[in-house]
Amino acid sequence: MERTPPHPEVDQFSLQQVLEALVDPVRRSIVAQLHARRADMACGAFDLSVSKSTATHHFKVLREAGLIRQHYVGTSRMNTLRDREMEEAFPGLLTAVVRAETPPAPAGA
Amino acid sequence: MERTPPHPEVDQFSLQQVLEALVDPVRRSIVAQLHARRADMACGAFDLSVSKSTATHHFKVLREAGLIRQHYVGTSRMNTLRDREMEEAFPGLLTAVVRAETPPAPAGA
Repeated sequence: MERTPPHPEVDQFSLQQVLEALVDPVRRSIVAQLHARRADMACGAFDLSVSKSTATHHFKVLREAGLIRQHYVGTSRMNTLRDREMEEAFPGLLTAVVRAETPPAPAGA
Repeated sequence: MERTPPHPEVDQFSLQQVLEALVDPVRRSIVAQLHARRADMACGAFDLSVSKSTATHHFKVLREAGLIRQHYVGTSRMNTLRDREMEEAFPGLLTAVVRAETPPAPAGA
């Protein structure tokens, strides 16, 4: 009884689609939060400044670009960063965007 | 008698503006051609599928984002990739985009 939405395979990833996903600051924030947490996160666990329906749209754009994988656990939609697959398709790209998105830790922290 | 248009300094670079510049395929092509040539190029020297006035707009967006530097030599507007400054601001980003944009050379080439 899986309800897994469609996901592109690595060889279907498009640089254009990935950049269109990453050009939006809310979507970059989702990716950065997933990267920082280093674990799956439910849609409701993100710190986002947009409505739930807008967030749902952003998750869909990220999923269709191949940046995240979504699956259900009970009634929660869980999100996984597809960082290794993205690295395979576009080496260094996701790492560079996350690094640029995330301010460096203060010295001594 | 310089006619150099304004350019942002490195500490004025904005990730949002850089990604908005790089999300356009014509602008990525300009950046990739500059990177491949490893030399300054006049606006007219690029292989682009758009009109001259559209190209001028794209060069302006790239300049304002900090991706290229423009200066005049006689009546030619020359373009320089600001790859080192971009690397300083957003490490790995431009390299990753250029690499993703440029198809790998055929084996044995």
